[in-house]
Formats: sequence, structure tokens, C-alpha cells
Amino acid sequence: MSKTAISWQVVAQEGKARVGLLQTRRSLIETPVFMPVGTAGTVKGTRFEALESPELDARIILGNTYHLWLRPGADVIRACGGLHRFIGWERALLTDSGGFQVWSLGALRKLREEGVEFRSHVDGSARFLSPEVSMEVQAALGSEIAMAFDECAPGKATHEVARASMELTARWAARSRARFDELQREGADMGRTPEQHTSVNGEQALFGIVQGAAHADLRLESLARTVEIGFDGYAIGGLSVGEEKSVMYDTIELVAPQMPQGRPRYLMGVGTPEDLLAAVARGVDMFDCVLPTRDGRNGRAYTSLGPINIKNARHTTDTRPLDEDCACSVCRRHARAYLRHLYNAGEMLASILLTHHNLAFFLDTMRRVRQAIRSGNFARFQREFVERYNSGVG
Amino acid sequence: MSKTAISWQVVAQEGKARVGLLQTRRSLIETPVFMPVGTAGTVKGTRFEALESPELDARIILGNTYHLWLRPGADVIRACGGLHRFIGWERALLTDSGGFQVWSLGALRKLREEGVEFRSHVDGSARFLSPEVSMEVQAALGSEIAMAFDECAPGKATHEVARASMELTARWAARSRARFDELQREGADMGRTPEQHTSVNGEQALFGIVQGAAHADLRLESLARTVEIGFDGYAIGGLSVGEEKSVMYDTIELVAPQMPQGRPRYLMGVGTPEDLLAAVARGVDMFDCVLPTRDGRNGRAYTSLGPINIKNARHTTDTRPLDEDCACSVCRRHARAYLRHLYNAGEMLASILLTHHNLAFFLDTMRRVRQAIRSGNFARFQREFVERYNSGVG
Repeated sequence: MSKTAISWQVVAQEGKARVGLLQTRRSLIETPVFMPVGTAGTVKGTRFEALESPELDARIILGNTYHLWLRPGADVIRACGGLHRFIGWERALLTDSGGFQVWSLGALRKLREEGVEFRSHVDGSARFLSPEVSMEVQAALGSEIAMAFDECAPGKATHEVARASMELTARWAARSRARFDELQREGADMGRTPEQHTSVNGEQALFGIVQGAAHADLRLESLARTVEIGFDGYAIGGLSVGEEKSVMYDTIELVAPQMPQGRPRYLMGVGTPEDLLAAVARGVDMFDCVLPTRDGRNGRAYTSLGPINIKNARHTTDTRPLDEDCACSVCRRHARAYLRHLYNAGEMLASILLTHHNLAFFLDTMRRVRQAIRSGNFARFQREFVERYNSGVG
Repeated sequence: MSKTAISWQVVAQEGKARVGLLQTRRSLIETPVFMPVGTAGTVKGTRFEALESPELDARIILGNTYHLWLRPGADVIRACGGLHRFIGWERALLTDSGGFQVWSLGALRKLREEGVEFRSHVDGSARFLSPEVSMEVQAALGSEIAMAFDECAPGKATHEVARASMELTARWAARSRARFDELQREGADMGRTPEQHTSVNGEQALFGIVQGAAHADLRLESLARTVEIGFDGYAIGGLSVGEEKSVMYDTIELVAPQMPQGRPRYLMGVGTPEDLLAAVARGVDMFDCVLPTRDGRNGRAYTSLGPINIKNARHTTDTRPLDEDCACSVCRRHARAYLRHLYNAGEMLASILLTHHNLAFFLDTMRRVRQAIRSGNFARFQREFVERYNSGVG
């Protein structure tokens, strides 16, 4: 196991909810943490200065191995000194393995024991992704936290399908671990200059991923097999992929508390503000989701009184901010009427401002979650938050 | 004439080039000034915080009467307290009259003495724009500087066509002046609350526009007739609309020095960095142009060594900034390789960053122009700037 890549320790706890400190080479990250998604090396519509500003203060963002591997390609990013230097971001990065994106291709992919064949959505070229390739690309990207290459089963997969998928994931996890460890040992031998090596450091952490769809026995078996291999942190994958909400909550409730206490727990690709709080209450520490950015581009704003649709005619001359309880720069400056106008006129600034507000809302909510756990008020905080959020008066 | 709306005075001069101080209710603006274009109430892709930041420090931006009148409509903006409050911008605004946009509709418009009939590009509705309507809409917008409603002739218009257009512009200028003066007197009686009146102040300035296409006699007659009516500033319209570049420079050379010395001179819709310097040398004080924003969205960056196309394959692994002499936040942080990747991936951030850099380049160039005039080095500055700009080594 990579001992020095990251450290994480619990500093406060209330029930199953924990506050932790995650130390990487580049950032001190307080958990529970929400990680904005930077698919192609950019959190869509957001300048890095905004992510670093005190009102967002994102300490870690995601990069998508699948997208970056296809465009601009690992060679380009390696030649530019790794993903941090390429995009101009000094804080921490987590890269996913590409497994989920390849799974999303559905019938367009061909799954084998060795890996997955598919055609690039960028140029139609034939590509092959495997645990080994994923680890090599993630090493070139130089993220602080890399993810094992997994196979995701649909939320409603039968036991048989889910078992086969989970077992493949376990075998791929072992191969990911092996190739990852080789790469970390190789370090500076990967064709990097010493200067590049400082940035694209071999000292990455690797997280394993628990699969098993909605089947409790498979989830627990997946967890046991993943822990047996040993990782720096553990993720719950394959949720929010078509299953009922109650199944998602039940699975988190089952799995999270049984994950190793001393390692961060990461719920991949989830979710709404209510989902985040529910998962924190069940012991999850890390989250990523495209909702604040994607919904922002589609005219949807998250507020303390629930989501609002900025396209709605009722905002036409509404001079109130998106959220009167929000202190972000968008809410301090701009009225709903203006944001609606920008959206209707197809102006890029609509996406920019709604994305910024949504990120501020998610990140600030997580700050308040941490504060509530520290002061022992998390249960009350969650109850009041959900009540206001569903009050329907926004 | 509106005595209190703006004041302007020359504080330094070198040849025909002048540095002036333009005082409006909201901003102290040093001229020569470049005004970023905020067509639909937004400088496309740019947050107002960036426009206000020291590296851009735009003191005045444009709003387009035509676009804002059609969407969201003058009633919406009036209900929100005027354009400044609607968009969240406390600094100065100049609104054009809509004449140029209507002219751009070409065959889709129907021109009469009374005004122009056309169909809205937004919803297809029949609309009618006239000097009176333009003044009323601009009063509702509440800009510091309003423009007379003019008729633009194509750059290559015959003498006969250009004369008719110029004479119509002169009659419309008189009507613009008359309705404008009524509106300024009406002030708070326009159905505004006292609070709105503070923002949408009747104290606007009005600029007249010189037309006449490429015909020297018509240009001078247009100037004389516009000055006879009397305005707070004078603009040269109808350039950069299809005529040869030499015709544009000749027209500026002919007209600008004969415009009233004590009033700001505004060259509408022009131009490249070289054009700006050439016009300053001929006595022009104010500029607006979509080039930095539109070209930014199309992958074109302005640099001290000339424009570059970020799509070009030679930038694929180029870790240099757009312009090594530029101190803007984009050049301090991001490599050409990254900007090219963003552009190729269709990422909004490409437009955001290239627009920001281009605006920084235009605004910083104007700062350097003013400094050069103040220190008596403008002629040398212009020569050296143009030489570097055309060196072809960017």
C-alpha cells in the first residue's frame, strides 16, 4: 500500500457521521467533502480563480480519465507536465478510472476479461481500456487519488448479472493494484524529466470500489474482497444508476458502516443536497456529482428553499436573488430577473452564474455539515435543512 | 443641451491625439477609452467582477438598445429599476440607438421617414423603431450616454444613396434631440418610483452621429448639421461596414479633427488594435468593438506579436502563455496547450478565458496609449506597437 500518498484521520464524530482531515501533497481537505467534477480538465463554466476563492474554496476536484485519455490524450498531458500543470490547478485532483464512462457507452462497448473495447466518441477510433491502461493513464495525469478500474452493473441488475460484474470488478481491482504499485515504484523512470517528476509525482493514492448493484450479499462480498486487496480509501460505486432511491439509501446504510473505519469512504456520483446529508449520516466522507454544474447549465438553481427553475415566467421581474440566505457573489449581485433573461437569450453568463451559485450552495452546505458534526448538532441540522428544502416556498 | 449629464476635458495632447477625463454620474473615465460590448446586458462570457478587476478595469460598457428592447423588453428593465440595476453594474453604460442593428437586418426592414418597420428576430412580431421610440427605450435603460437614432449607409454607397441616408440621419438627429430633451425634463414623471428615479436618472447625455459613407463632402455636411443641432459628444458612424481600410482611415482623418474640440469623439464599432491606434492618432477618444469578445469565442487571441489562432496544431503541447508580455490572469495561469484543448473539446472555458485575455489586451493597450500621450511618446509607441504586432513571430 502507498503509505505516504495521503493521510486521513477522524477529528470529530456524531453517530455515524464523521469529520476528517485528508492530507494530500497539495491540499488539506476537510471531510465530508464535495468534489466538483472537472470532466475534461475544466469544471464547466468555472474559472479556477473562482474555485479557489473563499466563497467556493474547493480543495479537490475530479478529472475524468476516459475523457482526458481520448482528448487531448495522455501523451499531450504528460508532455505538459501532468494534469495539474496542464490545467493550471495547484490543489488536489482525484481521477476516476474510466470504468463508469465506458459502462455508460452501453451496447457500444465490448466487455472481455482483459478489458473493454469501444470506439472513441471523439474520432471513432478503436480503443481498449483495462485496469493496466487505466493505471498508466492516471499515473500520467498525476492525480493525488486514483481509482481502481471497475465494472458497473445497472441498478436493477439481476443477482446473476450483478455477481458476474462484481467478481470481474474484484479481479480488475487486484490487477489495478498490481499495475499501480509497479508504476509507483517506477516513479521517475516513466520518461519524465526531473522537473516534471516533481509535479507528476509517483506518490498517488489508490481507492478500491465496492460494487454489487442492489444485492446486499454481493455488496458485502465485494467490500470484503476489496478490503482484502487493500486500498488507501474505499468507494461505493454503482449507485444512482437507475435503482430506487430507497435502494440507494439502504445500500449506503448497509455498506458504509462496515467499510474500514480509518479510511475515507467515497460515494461516487451522488447526489442531491438531501442525498449528501443522508449519506453523511450513514458514515460517508467524500462525494462528487455533476448536478450543480449540469443543472446550472440547464437553468436549475439549488437554494435553501429547494430547487428553482430560472426559466419560469414568475421570475420575469423578480429582483430577489436566487437564495436570500446565500452569500455567494451571484446572490449578492444578480436578480432572478436578470438570470432568467440571460438564460432565455442563450447567454453563456447564465451557465456561468448558475453554476457558480450551485457550487457555492453545495460547498457551503458541506461546510455547514462539518460544523454541525463538530458541534454535535448534525442530526438537528439535517432535519431542519431537509424541512426547509422541501417547504416549497422558494 | 444637457449640461450636467457628463463633463469632459482634455488633460494632455500630442499632435491630434488627446487624453481626456470623462466624468459621468457613476464613473471617471480616462479617454482614449475602449468600451467592451455588452449586447444583451452581458459582455459575453465575462463576469462583472472581472470587468471591475484591476487587470481589466472597464469603466464603461455598451448596451444594445435593439437587443434589450426586443428581449427582455423595456418594461421588464424599467420594472427592475433600469439597466444598471437589472444587470448589476454600477459603472457607466453607453447605449446605442438601435439604428445600426436595424440597418443590419437589410431587406428584412422597411424604411420610412417616420422610422423603421421590421420583424423581431426573437419572436417574429412586427416592431417599429423611430427616433422617438429609441429615446424612450434609452431613457428606460437609464444609460449615462445615449445615442441619436441614425441611418447607416453601406460603405460603398453611391453619392446619391449616401446623401439621402445622411439627410434622413440629420432629420432623425433633430427628432432624437427633441424627444430626448422632453424625456429629460419629464424625469421622475415617467412612471418611476422615486427609488427607481435615483437609478434611472433623467440626466443622460446624448451623442450625435456623423454619417455620409465614403463621400468627403457628405461627411463634412453631416458633421456641420449634427453640430448645428448640438450634442454632448459626436460619433463617426458607418465605418468598418464594407469599405476599404484606406477609406476608413481617410474618413477619420478628414472628420475627426473638424469635430468640436471640447467634446468627446466616438468612433463606432471599430476595430483592431492597429485601427484604434490609428484613430487615436487622428484625434478619436472613444471606441467600442466586438472583436475581443467575438474573436475570443472563435478561438482567436490578440497578442503583442499579432493575433494567433488557438486551434492551430502547433499549440498542442505549447506550455507558453498566449502572450509572454501579458500580465493578465489567463496568461499568468494557462498554457496555449490547455486553451487549445478547451477549444477543441467545445468547453465554455475556452471562450471565457480567450475573451478575458483579449479584453485585457485591448484595455491594457489603451492604458499604454494614454500613458504614451501623457509623456509625449505616443508617435513612437504607435510605431513600435505596430512593428511588433506585424512581426509574425507570435
